[in-house]
Amino acid sequence: MAYFPAFQFRKRYYKGIIMSDQNSTILVGIDGGGTGCRVAIADADRNIIGTAKGGPANPTYTPQQARDNILAAIDAARLDAGLEQTAINSARAYVGLAGIRNDTDAEFIAEILPFAQARVVEDRATTVTGALAGGDGAVAAIGTGSFVARSKGGKTGYLGGWGFRLGDQASGAWLGRNLLERVILCAEGIEPHSDLTRETLARYDDDPHAIYEFGNAATPAEFGKLAPLVVDAANKGDPTATAMMRDGADYIVKALNTLGYRPDEPLCLTGGLGPHYTNFLQASFARQVMMPKGSALDGALLLASRMGDAP
Amino acid sequence: MAYFPAFQFRKRYYKGIIMSDQNSTILVGIDGGGTGCRVAIADADRNIIGTAKGGPANPTYTPQQARDNILAAIDAARLDAGLEQTAINSARAYVGLAGIRNDTDAEFIAEILPFAQARVVEDRATTVTGALAGGDGAVAAIGTGSFVARSKGGKTGYLGGWGFRLGDQASGAWLGRNLLERVILCAEGIEPHSDLTRETLARYDDDPHAIYEFGNAATPAEFGKLAPLVVDAANKGDPTATAMMRDGADYIVKALNTLGYRPDEPLCLTGGLGPHYTNFLQASFARQVMMPKGSALDGALLLASRMGDAP
Repeated sequence: MAYFPAFQFRKRYYKGIIMSDQNSTILVGIDGGGTGCRVAIADADRNIIGTAKGGPANPTYTPQQARDNILAAIDAARLDAGLEQTAINSARAYVGLAGIRNDTDAEFIAEILPFAQARVVEDRATTVTGALAGGDGAVAAIGTGSFVARSKGGKTGYLGGWGFRLGDQASGAWLGRNLLERVILCAEGIEPHSDLTRETLARYDDDPHAIYEFGNAATPAEFGKLAPLVVDAANKGDPTATAMMRDGADYIVKALNTLGYRPDEPLCLTGGLGPHYTNFLQASFARQVMMPKGSALDGALLLASRMGDAP
Repeated sequence: MAYFPAFQFRKRYYKGIIMSDQNSTILVGIDGGGTGCRVAIADADRNIIGTAKGGPANPTYTPQQARDNILAAIDAARLDAGLEQTAINSARAYVGLAGIRNDTDAEFIAEILPFAQARVVEDRATTVTGALAGGDGAVAAIGTGSFVARSKGGKTGYLGGWGFRLGDQASGAWLGRNLLERVILCAEGIEPHSDLTRETLARYDDDPHAIYEFGNAATPAEFGKLAPLVVDAANKGDPTATAMMRDGADYIVKALNTLGYRPDEPLCLTGGLGPHYTNFLQASFARQVMMPKGSALDGALLLASRMGDAP
């Protein structure tokens, strides 16, 4: 996971002991998912005073492991910050996790957290808050999966995020799967080959059965590993790859328009693939693309700092 | 599984004992897959003298069960025919099974068969031979999965059959999955609703999360159960359904053309969905559509009868 420079939270390298009686405003941000979790602790002045990384934290597939890894990472961040446990116990925390789909998932994690106040949400909220630094604008988050969001006046609307089988249009898994479907059609002569399809087929020893075997077992992340082939080929003008990236860009534009996006609003393309769609957006959208102001972890910290605003 | 009238093999209702010394030309046809298996026994005059149905026979997922169920069905058909075991032991048999993907799968089944001569193949060959009664023509087999084939002068070419994840275009699983992807986009306002998408969404209590839950767990067969909604809506002129059926028909036509199909050749649309594409084919293809002359089981018997031709 890329760690973007914090937009509001400054990393402080001196780690002194902070006494618990000073700590009513200690903030904890947590970002997690199937590949790992990250914890950042900030003081009342929004200095980041401790961070830690931990193991996978997917509340859907491995809930107990998620609990264990999050707790371990919190403790590592506490030690990194030089805080006593009492400081953690009085902290406010915001937790964004991939795979939180309902209150039951959120509760399962929330009930073991050691904080005075904590909120557990799907990581879409922390991603958007981080990318826009809590301001107005739109986000198309395109990694292994995908979703599109727009924030306006403190309210955020979301579209997408329906997973590999029925959604996640424009995502890495979507590109990878679409590529392999196309390569099989080309191998059979039903569709014409391009450089991309020929080179992809060669990776499987020119044997569509090998693609079939891969495809039947592959996880979305494994399909997503093929997406860079599509991006690179599209940038070189490969017609098949270009059509796939345009299809993905069309989805992003349709979703943004559905959310009421206006052409003067900032647009963040996040995730490993997001920025690569800039080239394939119509100019009025492409010119609004800006770098994300922060990561999902930054977003979690910002949301934690706002918990006090409306207790 | 539909059982079409045999084109060459006549069912004989009298079941006398056939002595083993007369039985050098006893023929056995077997058709099987994940939902069950069927066995037919014919005498030298191509009268069907015994049949039986058995349990699931998928050599990929449940190989030992496939062996057991096929052997039990053979024995039931033997008893139905009033044959002694020695007659079976000297028979020639052709076995078409869904899920045979390589020689290892075929060998695993073949080595337990009690026949003098036996061949185990994927059921595509028996389906095509049955539908065309061993003659020239093309077959688009569209059920839960799909494939397209063309026979000319005793040679058959095949396209498709690459499974739910990367292929099976036009199939029931493909239609069902595409429908649900579309319904979620409509529910989000990204694409316009049609009657079909509105009614499908209502089946899930107007909750795309329910579709997400279904879609994440559904088997291809479960997706395929939605295909009749698409067919019915397309026949009523629903624009979304019509577009989906046209996409499927386009795939069928492209595959047929790739196989060298000529507009004067017979075209069989088999499987539960095949015939429903007739309406959505261009006229030059639609007018060539004919009823299949027989089932995969008939095809297996015909192929068994030909085994003697080239020993």
